[in-house]
Formats: sequence, structure tokens, C-alpha cells
Amino acid sequence: MSTLVNVPRSVIWNGNSITLLNQTKLPTEVEYKELTTIESVWDSIVALEVRGAPAIGITAAFGLAQAARRYETADITKFLAQLKRDRDYLASSRPTAVNLFWALDRVVRSVDDSLTVEEAKERLEREALDIQQEDEEVCRTIGENALTLFRDGDKVLTICNAGSIATARYGTALAPFYLAKEQGISLQVFASETRPVLQGARLTAWELQQAGVDVTLITDNMAANTIAAKGISAIIVGADRIVANGDTANKIGTFNLAVLAKYFNIPFYVAAPLSTFDPALETGAEIVIEERKDEEVTHVFGTRVAPEGVAVYNPAFDVTPNELITGIVTEKGILRGNYKEAIAKLFL
Amino acid sequence: MSTLVNVPRSVIWNGNSITLLNQTKLPTEVEYKELTTIESVWDSIVALEVRGAPAIGITAAFGLAQAARRYETADITKFLAQLKRDRDYLASSRPTAVNLFWALDRVVRSVDDSLTVEEAKERLEREALDIQQEDEEVCRTIGENALTLFRDGDKVLTICNAGSIATARYGTALAPFYLAKEQGISLQVFASETRPVLQGARLTAWELQQAGVDVTLITDNMAANTIAAKGISAIIVGADRIVANGDTANKIGTFNLAVLAKYFNIPFYVAAPLSTFDPALETGAEIVIEERKDEEVTHVFGTRVAPEGVAVYNPAFDVTPNELITGIVTEKGILRGNYKEAIAKLFL
Repeated sequence: MSTLVNVPRSVIWNGNSITLLNQTKLPTEVEYKELTTIESVWDSIVALEVRGAPAIGITAAFGLAQAARRYETADITKFLAQLKRDRDYLASSRPTAVNLFWALDRVVRSVDDSLTVEEAKERLEREALDIQQEDEEVCRTIGENALTLFRDGDKVLTICNAGSIATARYGTALAPFYLAKEQGISLQVFASETRPVLQGARLTAWELQQAGVDVTLITDNMAANTIAAKGISAIIVGADRIVANGDTANKIGTFNLAVLAKYFNIPFYVAAPLSTFDPALETGAEIVIEERKDEEVTHVFGTRVAPEGVAVYNPAFDVTPNELITGIVTEKGILRGNYKEAIAKLFL
Repeated sequence: MSTLVNVPRSVIWNGNSITLLNQTKLPTEVEYKELTTIESVWDSIVALEVRGAPAIGITAAFGLAQAARRYETADITKFLAQLKRDRDYLASSRPTAVNLFWALDRVVRSVDDSLTVEEAKERLEREALDIQQEDEEVCRTIGENALTLFRDGDKVLTICNAGSIATARYGTALAPFYLAKEQGISLQVFASETRPVLQGARLTAWELQQAGVDVTLITDNMAANTIAAKGISAIIVGADRIVANGDTANKIGTFNLAVLAKYFNIPFYVAAPLSTFDPALETGAEIVIEERKDEEVTHVFGTRVAPEGVAVYNPAFDVTPNELITGIVTEKGILRGNYKEAIAKLFL
């Protein structure tokens, strides 16, 4: 049994322009923008209208392909020079986004041996589409692998937005929920709101709702009571970075959930593509935890909720120790047990 | 060494009128209101301008004494009838607040054997002052007992507002922090913001700041990372209800922290007066968990943060199993070990 499920996409290539879901307007307004210039692509990335490493990379790749189509020169050398300039311009939109550089460099590299401008223009578009298509396939495979972990009727808790709109489609931690819906498997999802930036409330609740997935919103501190009272059967989260021994950096609050999973004796899964692994780092202790500005905690959507002058600690993510992770779901299968060995094998 | 510390009070009796801290305006505005009529006292309780069971009881007791002073009859029977009517009026301001009835009945009982109206008026005021004074002493004693658990330099995490402004003074879980400040003992407090109603951000951060206590605000999901990164040495929380076996109902999020304390092997303390114990219930399983309206989760200070129509689970509190509680700090000492026996002894 397979049903047509509306899995929201955040980046759509129309053959000429980019249709972009403006994620800053969610959840109160669903705005799709047409981006027709490279400046508008740059602006959208800077303004965080598109977020999620894969989605940012895909947007930039299309942005560069789109810009190149309008270059008026027929000289391939001039064309490549102009392309390089625009690549650098787009790369400056979010200087810490590794995936952004990766995607831009990949489309630029795709025209290395192009002989004509026309050929190069086509290849750029083809490569951007490939990046998007491959990401969708990776996400779908992660979703298929993750879905083997759940049974009809399961109640699953997640945090932040490792979702469709952060990727080409399906997302990572949320992918099994869309596939379950397609296959008529009933899963009940609990979304933790994810303070301070509320990605769970604003984005995950919204995108699962769009697809008709059964989703219930809780605040982050309700997790223990919800696991006990509602009979949560598993927790699944995404990842920002997974190091050589399986220690996993992800959105703040993930570590809390992993500890709760252990206490309640339910499985705790991480879902992430191979591109999230950083085997150059031995353990999570080597990960520097970014601290963000106080206002994220002292204000909610511009309204002050804490007294002026109060000290704030605002780490953007935390590191979950490998011993708390039941399995890491990738497009190459599910890693379990000795993560150090399993991860090393992945990158042989 | 003892320093003068500004421990905020939420209810002050001026011999004639009540000065009340309007807690609904915190943390952006510090408004003290003069309540000169019984209607204004009723309104303030209804509007949650005063919150915290002891503070509500004290406000109502002063409200009744204040109203009675203006009765014009010299007939004690007529006086008592009027008093009964006003008692019922104030009792209707928050029909589920046990402490409210307890305080009102206590001041009413205090004039049972009064022979004259003048004598009754004085006794009512005296009794209300006694209730306030006794609560302050209970809180101070809890604070002294709790302070024996901490050492100079300790970093202590708390949630919600078991604070001075919820009681006559000092509070319960926050009391040791004020006494430490008075005695020159340096403690660093981490306040969990306590979604959905944000009592930690709005009230605890504010009142500790007023007293010059070193306080740092975090969101609830930062607890695990904060314990690990900052070296939190203990967690202390208040209680709504403690049953015969020590299971403790308190603000949602408390259970999460207790599980984290166990994982990190740090002590988890509950601080509460004897009046919080309910030995009629055997275990926490008998406690019915109140669910509150969805809007508390989907909105923050009136701003929508989640999509329309999303399902919400909003339990107001959770129940921490006794096995996770290192000690229960009362005005009669610190209970440890076999809570069933220790609590039974308290109520022999």
C-alpha cells in the first residue's frame, strides 16, 4: 500500500528560477519566493530564509547555474572567470557552511573540461540537479533504513528539524515518518519544541502536519513525563557532526534526550548521511561548542522573557556520548556496537 | 560574616493596606500595587498577580483582616457573619488553591472566642501577620538546612520558581542561595527557564538578581550540556506535592533533571515545607497530572510559535520517583533513604 504524501520541499528548480520556501515566515505564513537573480539567492541565504546544510548547498548550486545562464560571453575562459567570481560571491553568504562550499565547488568543477559556453551552462544546471537528486536519494535511503527500526503503532520522539525542508526532500530523522505515511504504517511523532530557536515547534510540527503525519508538540522539559505517560517507544534525532568514535554533536537538547532514553530503556537513534561524519576528530571532546547570543534565550520572537542584564549560557548544540546511542542510521545501513570500527570501515 | 541582602518580598502589610508585587508584569516591569479594598485583593488573586501557594494565602489573610477593620457594626455576631461572607468571597478567587482556604480559615478561627469587635479586628490582623511570620521562619529554616548541602564555589541548578516571591520570604529551593549570600558563601545558580510559562526566566532570574545572587539563565534543554560543561554540583527544586513514599510532583521538567542528576552522579534535592506533604496518597501513580491549555505551548507572550491546528500535550507538572531523590529538605531536617518511614515519622 502506498499513498501520495505531500512531503514539503524547500528548494524547487523551475528550469529558470528557484522557488524557495521562506523558512523565516514559518509557522504562521507559508511563503514561496521566486529567486531570479544571484543577489536574491545571496540575500535568502544570509537572511536564513533557507536553512539546513543540504538545502543551503542546493540553493547555492542552482543560484550559480542560474547566474551563469545569463553570462553574455561566448569565450569559455571569460565565462569561467565570471563563474569563479560568482562562486566566491555566493560562498560569502554564510562563511561557516561547509556544505555551501562543497556544493558550489562541485558545480564549478563540473565545467572544468567544458569546451563551449553552451555546454558549460547545461552542465552547471545538470550538476545542481544531480546534487539535489542525490541528496533526495540519500535521505530516502536513510528513511528506509530507519523505518526498519519502527513498528506500526510506535510513538517516536524527535527534536529540532532534521527534516525535509532542511534537505532536498524527506530529511534524515524525519524521513522514516514520511515513508511510514506512504506505506500506511501508523507512527505517532512527538516533536520537542527545541528552545531557544524553536525549530521543533516552527518547522518540524509544520512539515509533518503538511504531510498528514500524526504529530504532537511538547516543550523540551516535558520529555521525561511524555516518555512515561505516553509510552514513547524510541527517540530519533539528526546530527551536525559525528566523530570517529560515534560521539555526536547535534542541536542543544539532544544529549538530554539520550540520557532519558537510557533511563527509560528505549532506543536512541541518530540519523545522518555519510557527509555528516568527521572521522578526523577522535572523540566528542575535540568538538568546540559554539555559544550564541544571549538574546536567543532572553527573547522569544522579539519579546523579552527574562530580566535585563541576566547572565545567559547559550550553547548551540551538545555532544551525545556514543555509549548512549543505540544505532546510527546512514544511507549505507545502520551502525551499531563498536562505532569506532564501524565508522572506520565506512571511510576505508 | 553577614551581609544585608535584598530578598524580594511579594506581600507587605503596611498596617492598613497591602503592598503587592504584581508578578504578571515581571520581568520587564517591577510594579508594586497598593491593595486597599477586598475587591482589589480578589482581583489580584484571580489575575495571578500574586502566585505561589503561601503568598496567595498570606495575601488573602491580610485581605480579610483589612476588610474586617472597616466593618461598622459593634455587634460581634453581625461582625462574624460579615466576616464569613467575606471569607467565602475571597475563597472563590482561586477555587483549587488549598493554601488559600487554609489561611482564610485560620484567621477566621482566630476570632472564634473574641468577645468584642475591636478585639476581633486586632486578632485577625495578628493572625495574618503570624501566618506570614511563620512561613518566613519555615522558609528560612529550610534554607539553613539546605545550605548544609552546599559548599563555597558550588554550582547549583534549579527549575521554576520555588522562590521568595512565592512565599512570605526566602522561598524553598531558592532559600539556601539567599542565606549563602548573607553568609558570604559563594554559590553560582543556574536557572532553567521552565517552559511553557517561563517562571525560571521571568521570576527566578529576576529575584536572584535583585539579591545579587550569581545567576545564569539557560533553556530547559541545555541542562545536560550545562551539567557537563559547567560542572554543576547539585540540583535543587521545590515541590507541589510529596506523597507517602517520597514521590514528588513538581513543575514539568523536574523529572528530566532528576534523571540527568542520576546519570551525572550528582545529588538531586527537593526542598519543601511539611505543608506540601500528602501522606494520604501512597505513591506518585495516584497523582492526577493536570493538563493545561494548548496555547501555553503554541504561544509565547501572545506570539504564535507553532502552526495552527497542531496537537499539543501540555502536562503542568511531572512526578519524580523517590529513587531519584537524594534528599528532601524540610523545616524539620533533611529526609534521606527510606522516605516511607521518614515521612510517616514526620506525621506521627
